[in-house]
This record gives sequence, structure tokens and C-alpha cells, in this order.
Amino acid sequence: MALQRPKGTQDHLPDGSPKLSRDVQASAFAYVQDTARRVLERAGAQFIATPLFEEAELVRRGVGGSTDIVRKEMFTVYYFGDHGGYVLRPEGTAGIVRAYLQNGLKQLPAPLKLWTHGPMFRAENVQKGRLRQFHQVDYEALGSADPLVDAEAIWLMWEVVRELGLTGVRVKLGSIGDPADREAYNAYLRDCFTPHAARLSDDSRDRLTRNPMRILDSKSAGDQALIGELQVKPMLDFLGEAARAHFAAVQAYLRAWNVPFDIDPAIVRGLDYYRRTAWELHHQGVGAKSALGGGGRYDGLSTQLGGPEVPGIGWAFGIERLLLALEAEGVTFPEASGPLLFLAALDEEHVARAAGLALEGRRVARVEFAYRALKPANAFKEAERRRARYAGLLGSEEAARGVLTIKHLASGEQQEVPLAALNTFLAERAL
Amino acid sequence: MALQRPKGTQDHLPDGSPKLSRDVQASAFAYVQDTARRVLERAGAQFIATPLFEEAELVRRGVGGSTDIVRKEMFTVYYFGDHGGYVLRPEGTAGIVRAYLQNGLKQLPAPLKLWTHGPMFRAENVQKGRLRQFHQVDYEALGSADPLVDAEAIWLMWEVVRELGLTGVRVKLGSIGDPADREAYNAYLRDCFTPHAARLSDDSRDRLTRNPMRILDSKSAGDQALIGELQVKPMLDFLGEAARAHFAAVQAYLRAWNVPFDIDPAIVRGLDYYRRTAWELHHQGVGAKSALGGGGRYDGLSTQLGGPEVPGIGWAFGIERLLLALEAEGVTFPEASGPLLFLAALDEEHVARAAGLALEGRRVARVEFAYRALKPANAFKEAERRRARYAGLLGSEEAARGVLTIKHLASGEQQEVPLAALNTFLAERAL
Repeated sequence: MALQRPKGTQDHLPDGSPKLSRDVQASAFAYVQDTARRVLERAGAQFIATPLFEEAELVRRGVGGSTDIVRKEMFTVYYFGDHGGYVLRPEGTAGIVRAYLQNGLKQLPAPLKLWTHGPMFRAENVQKGRLRQFHQVDYEALGSADPLVDAEAIWLMWEVVRELGLTGVRVKLGSIGDPADREAYNAYLRDCFTPHAARLSDDSRDRLTRNPMRILDSKSAGDQALIGELQVKPMLDFLGEAARAHFAAVQAYLRAWNVPFDIDPAIVRGLDYYRRTAWELHHQGVGAKSALGGGGRYDGLSTQLGGPEVPGIGWAFGIERLLLALEAEGVTFPEASGPLLFLAALDEEHVARAAGLALEGRRVARVEFAYRALKPANAFKEAERRRARYAGLLGSEEAARGVLTIKHLASGEQQEVPLAALNTFLAERAL
Repeated sequence: MALQRPKGTQDHLPDGSPKLSRDVQASAFAYVQDTARRVLERAGAQFIATPLFEEAELVRRGVGGSTDIVRKEMFTVYYFGDHGGYVLRPEGTAGIVRAYLQNGLKQLPAPLKLWTHGPMFRAENVQKGRLRQFHQVDYEALGSADPLVDAEAIWLMWEVVRELGLTGVRVKLGSIGDPADREAYNAYLRDCFTPHAARLSDDSRDRLTRNPMRILDSKSAGDQALIGELQVKPMLDFLGEAARAHFAAVQAYLRAWNVPFDIDPAIVRGLDYYRRTAWELHHQGVGAKSALGGGGRYDGLSTQLGGPEVPGIGWAFGIERLLLALEAEGVTFPEASGPLLFLAALDEEHVARAAGLALEGRRVARVEFAYRALKPANAFKEAERRRARYAGLLGSEEAARGVLTIKHLASGEQQEVPLAALNTFLAERAL
């Protein structure tokens, strides 16, 4: 048997491939990337790309040493003679903030809006919508703590979804406050859970000392039952005055712009550097946990990475998850069309000439050609198979008179086009 | 100090970044990718993407276990509980042929033309134009052994270079014949070198038994001196009848299409699966060894990977090397322009409204807005700094009358535009 791709990875395949589904269709990825590019670049966001691997320490600080991602799901990268300190990036934000600091991007007008798309890597248990190499569209706005920047970020994420043609998406919005608010909330949670510590899962008992908020995120059914029983108050009840005003301003902007959202008091972020606004986008069609992506403000991240304080906010979509949602809603998009012209020689003597005409024609339109001489009937059949709009024939008779016989395949109409006028003919018919 | 990116990697940065050079400019990468896309998709090539890491065995078989790439330059990828058998891909061909076999792409019309672009990884000594994460544009045509497919592949590579605006590029063309031809040549080389084996470098003495052709590729000055002294005949003198006819046909096509090339008898490919046509593109501006990229026919690769025989040919460009060549020739390309409109509120009360108008406007054009109220003079200054074409103002007076004051920055002309007509105004002026 031939060699296979690694578990949890996919090939993105051309249209027409056997057994093609949306989430492995290269043109579907292009549709999402192009839509995101249009929406984000019209908002003044500029493309940035960072390396696929980074110092493990960057990811540890950027994603958090106590997260499953860092503890269990890292792909470590070694090379001959290396210290072994590199990992494949599990997400995009840490690398972009690192690049912002390292390349002096603070000199550009703030907020600096950046976007990227590309592969991310987590050694997860593989399931529907969960791959080991998956792909994200990522947006970050750096250098401003204004709530208008938060609202614009959410609007942009919503607008990408809308432009893609998705309708069944819900925005769940929350706030995790400022560090002092979270300290107060953690103190409250410790008081809540400590008398019942014996009923908590091992992981959550560990969190009780280090970071009680993460208990709320627990995947253990027992933990979740206890949280319900104790009627634990949400983080939102503990917002300080500044965070409360910020949250109110974000909501006011979204209402003014008709972006529908639900307040979700259950949204938490376990890491210290997160601040205030946090949100998720959900869709029924994508399987486990239904999240298409999420975002949040991370004003504390930059200092965490060793830089000066830089306020920032960002979001990321999983492209595969968007594609599952598009498939679930039956959203269609323009598929790749065939060539404008399929050119065939009628005898071997004219194959090189026909190919040469096709190459010239490609300077204005998509033109394919037959690599061997074909009979007219076969040339038309092959042109149709390739979904060409026109078929062109070059035989001895045409060559002697310096013309091509060109047939419009839909109508069956035929005409002669002088060889010297072929590119004009194509240009008039190209999109 | 803040954390830094790994050695041998680069960030691709937005226009306007401090100390920006072509080879780290995100829009320059986009220029190369978009140009390649236009040329290749007009030829009917379809995009494919394969995972960034693959089974080490795939790369060993696809690139060759005796190459420096596999012996010294592999990035190995591990994860928790893994057998350690993955590597970051050092090139694109093996993965694409693997994907062709695994996904049944043989069912598509042959030759199937595929292209991709993306990062490749080699733990090389870092120098100008040699990175550990570098980027390629890659073209592969699978399913046909016709010399017209070879000539088209070379034409496409040449055409990408031409469309990029490069002029100082040389095509060096050779043929490495069929397996029997290479056997005859290797026997000849053994006869040449064996009497002088003591003068060969250790690596080359080793190659003398395993694969004498690779001695010709040696980086050792002593080996190269010996090759000169012995007046070693080139592979081209050993082509059999079939390979000679194939090579003649490729050249005839290229001459018919006015693609300039030089025959380079020194082009060798050390791996068994290579067949017949091989070429390189060179440019003075790119440093070590001057190669922008190369290509060749690899009819034996598919069986090497455990599949049935599939003839194939392909090429790859190093994007960073193309960018160095563009820089050396001073080729310019359209840089990102500013927004069509920069919108500012004249008092805090109208900031949300101005932002909302900007968001609506983005459905037709690039529109930016001020996150805080500005005085008119500052709004115009900020609009100019962002290279906007128009600046728009919304104050109490404008709001009361339902208009925007809009200034064309180049001419200084001002006009009032009704709020309801803003998108029409923008659409008429958008590209």
C-alpha cells in the first residue's frame, strides 16, 4: 500500500476529485480566505505571516503552561544538534504579538489591524471538526484599549460570517473584567468550592488553589453538577466599575450597528493576561461544542512575552468548522469554471503550433490544449468534458488559411477566427 | 528582552513597517503568489494543499536517504505518545504525489496540473537566501510522459518569471536520460574515478560505489578539480535513443515558443526516480549558487512511494529567492493603497454613528474611521497620514441635516453627501 498522510491531517483537493467534501475542497478554503480578506482589508487590516514553529517558551507564556494545549497537545520540533525548544504553533496570537514587538510595529498608526490565515497544530484526539493540523483565519487589533475597537472586532467577525452566507450563527458575549475583578471572583469561588473540595475532580481540586475560574470550564460532569447545585454566581456579577463601563460601551455599539448577540455569563478565560471582552461564535452544524471560533481582549499578553504593555484584542475562526457550517446550511459558492477555450490540432504536425497559440492566449484568458492531435468529434467531446466555453480546431486547411475553426459549445455555432486575432477574440469574451 | 522568532525564520510584515525589505514584505509574497496563480490557473492548474508534516518515510523515499536534506536538515516532529516518525516537509513534490495516490486523483483528466505555495523546512546553515522556513511556489503535472508536458512546464515557470517583471533569468536545460542510460553512465564514471579514488573526498569515495553520478554534484574543490582534469564526459553523451528523442522534442517546442535556454550538460539529479528532462532557473541577484528554482521529470517517484507507476514532472521556485531577484533588478509592483474614505466624528456624541456609517461603507470600499472625535484639521491630517483619498466629517451640524462633509484630499474640494447616499458615492469611486 502506498504511504498515507499523518493521522489528523487532510489534503485540500481540486474540484472534481472523487469523494470530495467541503472540508477538504481547496476552492472552499479559498472562498473562506478570499471572503475574509475582502472584509478585513476593507477595514484597513493588513496581512502578516509568522513562522509555523516558535520557541516553546513563547507558546507556554502565550497559551498558558497549565492548559491542555501546552501540557498534552504540543508538537515538538527537533533538528540535528538542536536544544529541542521549538514547537509547532497551536494558535496565531502569540506569534503575532511577538512579531509586533520584535519588528517595531508600534510605530504604525494605532490600532494596528493585522490579519492572517494558515495552519495551526494540536495533537488532539481526532474527531469531526477536530484535526491535528487545522486552519484558522485570525484578526488582531493592537495598540488601543478603546471599547470601539472591541466592538469593531466583533463586527468584523460577524461580517465575515454574514458575507460567507451563513445565517445560523449566534454571538455569545461576556466580560471577564480586570485583574482585580478576577481576584475578587476567584476569592469568591474558593469560598464556594472549598467546603465541597472532596467532590471536585482531581484537575479541579488542583485548580482550586491555582486558578479557581478554570473549574467553571471543567469537562467533568460531576464538577458541572456541583457548579449548578451551588448556584455559583457568574464573573459578570464581579465586574468593577471600569470593566462594567467598557462592557456597556461594547454592547451599545453592537446594538447601534444591529449585530445580534446574547450575553453569556458562562464565558471564562483561564489565563491571566485576558481582560474584559470575550466572545464566541456558535453554529449548530459543526459538532462538538458547536464553536466556530472566539475572541477576546488580551492587554496583559505583551508584558507576558517580555515586551512593554500593548493593549490588544483578536479573534480566530477555524476554517474547517466554517466549512462544516457552510455544508450544514447548504451554502453554495462559485465553483471553478472551465477554460474559455480548448484548442486541439487535427494532426500531429500542428500540435506544437496549437499549443503555442494556447500559450499566447493564456496572457488574456484560461486556455487549455490537447497534447495529441484529435479528430474534431473527439476535440469537441474533450472540450465539453473540461467544461470549456469554446473549442478551437487547427488542421492543415485552417493553417493554410491562417485561421482557427472555433465552436461555441453551448449554442453549437461555429466561426473562423484569424490566428492573429485570437487574443482579441479571447479578451472580448474573458471575464 | 522580549522573546524572538527562531533562527532562520522570518515574519512577513505589513507595508509601512520599519526597516522593511522585499524578502520580508507580506505584500511582496502576495505579489509572487498572485502572479503565479494567474499564470498557472490560466493554464488549467488547480490548487492543492498537503499537510506541513508527513511520515518521515515519505520524505526519505521522496527526497532520498543519502541526501544532505534527509541526513542533516530534517526537522523531526514529536508529540506526547508518538512514535516520532513525522518530519516537517522539506519540499512539496513527495506530498503532492502521495496525495494524488491516496485521493484517487488518477480519475481526473491527464495530465492533471496541480500547483501550491507554502512553507518548506530545512535545518540549513542560515545565509542570504537560505532560511530554515522558506516558501515555494510549486507546480506538478501528473499522468503524462509526453515531451509537450515537459515543455509546457518549463514555459509556465518562465512565464511566471516574465510576468513578475524579471529579465535577468537564464534557463539551464539538461537531460539525465532513462535508468538504463544512467546505469551506463555510472559504469563509465566508476571506470573514470576508481583509479583516482584516493584523491576523492570521503563523501565522494562513498558515492563511487553507491551512486557515482552524485560525485559530479560534490561541493569539494578537490573533487571538482579532479573532474576537470579527467575531462569527464557529461550524462548527455550517454542518452539512449528514446531519451534523446524526448530531449530533442522538448527543445523543439521551446524554440517554437521563443523560450530562451542554454543546454547545461552539468545538470544531474542524484535520485533513481528522476527521468529525462531536468532544468534550473538562475539569476545573478540571489547569492549562493544563483538558483531561483528548478524542475524535472520524476516518472519513478510514484512506485517509490508504494503506488502504481504515474509519470510526472514538476518545478519549484523559492519565493524568497525570487524576491531577492526582484530587489536586485529594482522591479516595483503596486503597493497597498490607503482607504477610499477616512471618516471622523467632530464630537464624542457622533463617534458611534460615524463608525456605523464606515462599517456600512465597507460593503463597497475600504473605509476607515477615527476611534475618538477629532477637530477638522486633525481629521484631515490623520486622513492624509493613512493615504486616504477622501476625508469625511460628521458633527452636530451635519447630523442635524443628515449629511457628511467630504473633502477630496488631493484637490481640497469639499462637498456635502447625504448620509443615505454615502454608499453610492463610495461605489462610484471604488476600483
